[in-house]
Amino acid sequence: MSLLVTGSIGIDTVRTPYGLSEDCLGGSAVYFSMAASFFGPVRFVGVIGSDCPFELARVFVGRGVDLAGLEVRRQSRTFRWAGTYSENMDDRTTDSVELNVLAEEPPKVPEVFADSRYVFLANTAPALQHQLLEQIREPRFVAADTMNCWIQGHTDDLKALLKKINCLIINEDEVRMLADEYNLILAGRKIQAMGAPIVVIKKGESGSLLCGADGKQFILPAYPATEVKDPTGAGDSFAGGFMGYLAQQERTDFETLKTAVAYGTVVASFTIADFSLQGLSAINKSDIDGRFEDLRKLTNF
Amino acid sequence: MSLLVTGSIGIDTVRTPYGLSEDCLGGSAVYFSMAASFFGPVRFVGVIGSDCPFELARVFVGRGVDLAGLEVRRQSRTFRWAGTYSENMDDRTTDSVELNVLAEEPPKVPEVFADSRYVFLANTAPALQHQLLEQIREPRFVAADTMNCWIQGHTDDLKALLKKINCLIINEDEVRMLADEYNLILAGRKIQAMGAPIVVIKKGESGSLLCGADGKQFILPAYPATEVKDPTGAGDSFAGGFMGYLAQQERTDFETLKTAVAYGTVVASFTIADFSLQGLSAINKSDIDGRFEDLRKLTNF
Repeated sequence: MSLLVTGSIGIDTVRTPYGLSEDCLGGSAVYFSMAASFFGPVRFVGVIGSDCPFELARVFVGRGVDLAGLEVRRQSRTFRWAGTYSENMDDRTTDSVELNVLAEEPPKVPEVFADSRYVFLANTAPALQHQLLEQIREPRFVAADTMNCWIQGHTDDLKALLKKINCLIINEDEVRMLADEYNLILAGRKIQAMGAPIVVIKKGESGSLLCGADGKQFILPAYPATEVKDPTGAGDSFAGGFMGYLAQQERTDFETLKTAVAYGTVVASFTIADFSLQGLSAINKSDIDGRFEDLRKLTNF
Repeated sequence: MSLLVTGSIGIDTVRTPYGLSEDCLGGSAVYFSMAASFFGPVRFVGVIGSDCPFELARVFVGRGVDLAGLEVRRQSRTFRWAGTYSENMDDRTTDSVELNVLAEEPPKVPEVFADSRYVFLANTAPALQHQLLEQIREPRFVAADTMNCWIQGHTDDLKALLKKINCLIINEDEVRMLADEYNLILAGRKIQAMGAPIVVIKKGESGSLLCGADGKQFILPAYPATEVKDPTGAGDSFAGGFMGYLAQQERTDFETLKTAVAYGTVVASFTIADFSLQGLSAINKSDIDGRFEDLRKLTNF
């Protein structure tokens, strides 16, 4: 297996009812890699500025995350995001964003990563996702994330991307916007008709919906977490667990996709239990497997 | 088995994006009975005025619903409700309510029903639920529903009721209000600590959560309906499928409760597919069993 992720590295400031986490490590590629690393090696592609206070090699030490694709730009500043979650954690407002290095050219995919088979294109401009994907010679399974600003402002690029990927992983509000359809089952089908053979819809604390080939569906509730301190990174952790499992299995049939959705759900439930990467740093694979079995018991009948 | 329901019979006027259904048959006891009748006989306790245009004996013909507890009050008028659903069906506003006969004394439970073993107390004032329950000699499993106005205005009566029942079936917003806790797992546990051994939380299109003895839980998504014309009666249909299955099995262990939640979910999915009772009138038990198997396939991994 060879799993590559392209995405952001961020300096996050997060306020939740449980506290304030200032200038902590975040970003889609970081959460994804941490989550996927429980299942096997990860190839990391991302870019930071000279101001980044985190040593990623130390963050990922012993986790099999290959940082050959980490680019440090001396003249640039690292992406920063600050946000506040509402009392019930069901809503968040962005307090400030500094795109900084993310507004520049995307990082290059190193030649040693060009043979990657499993690829996750974290949320960014669809044109950049195209550009990154073109550098992979023969990907076997490509998943991408997106968000409202690309759906509204870069629709054509995004629709072209849908024809080149195997799987779109997307929030419920965003899939409704992209499909112009409120019913999630119908919205998923419309995205499939646009070109993405598989659609995974993330519904936050309501769980997720997998739309596969031949109208096959799978619905899974979220893990019933009683401890939620910081939802930041839940979506990227979900994607990390999902793609990590697929790459580990080297299979993408529907049964494997279902199990991958369950692993994504479980990994995300550890992320949200604490700030930044602390939730994922505190566990090992057997914690994940234990909660996976719990989730099976909680949902099967 | 002997399953008794006490609840309302209503003349409903419902507006949804799919149309207007004027002066149609509704009410909690009606939806419940229709739903439960697929599993076995139902004993019906409710009251109407002389203006009621529906002949319930005809509505329930061939369904094993015993109307010995139906009281017709010549001097009274039937309960009426009118409501409008938002475009996405996720919100409804009440346009008008005429309590009429529901504001009077509750109906009597006929002596021939006093030996009922399974009892559902549909939503009404907790004091009336007490009064109705006292007329059943030796109930084996009692479930009750409630709503915001009783939680806020009749808290003590409701808390006293919780100690007398086996199961509270309640909406997510209402359980949060009653438990003063946003997290549904923790809210369910608080209701259990108040006295109800089993709590079933209905989350609408997000499914349901069953909290059982010894911290046991079961989470089930809603059936992924692509056809939703009128959500009225979904909750009472859920309760009908749930209680109908328990009474049929004459068991209330956790595995049976899980299956009952799944049957409740499936029956409710037929209710919402059409206005009033048309969804439930159009199906038979094999449709329910077929969709039950679909739901199992959609959720198990």
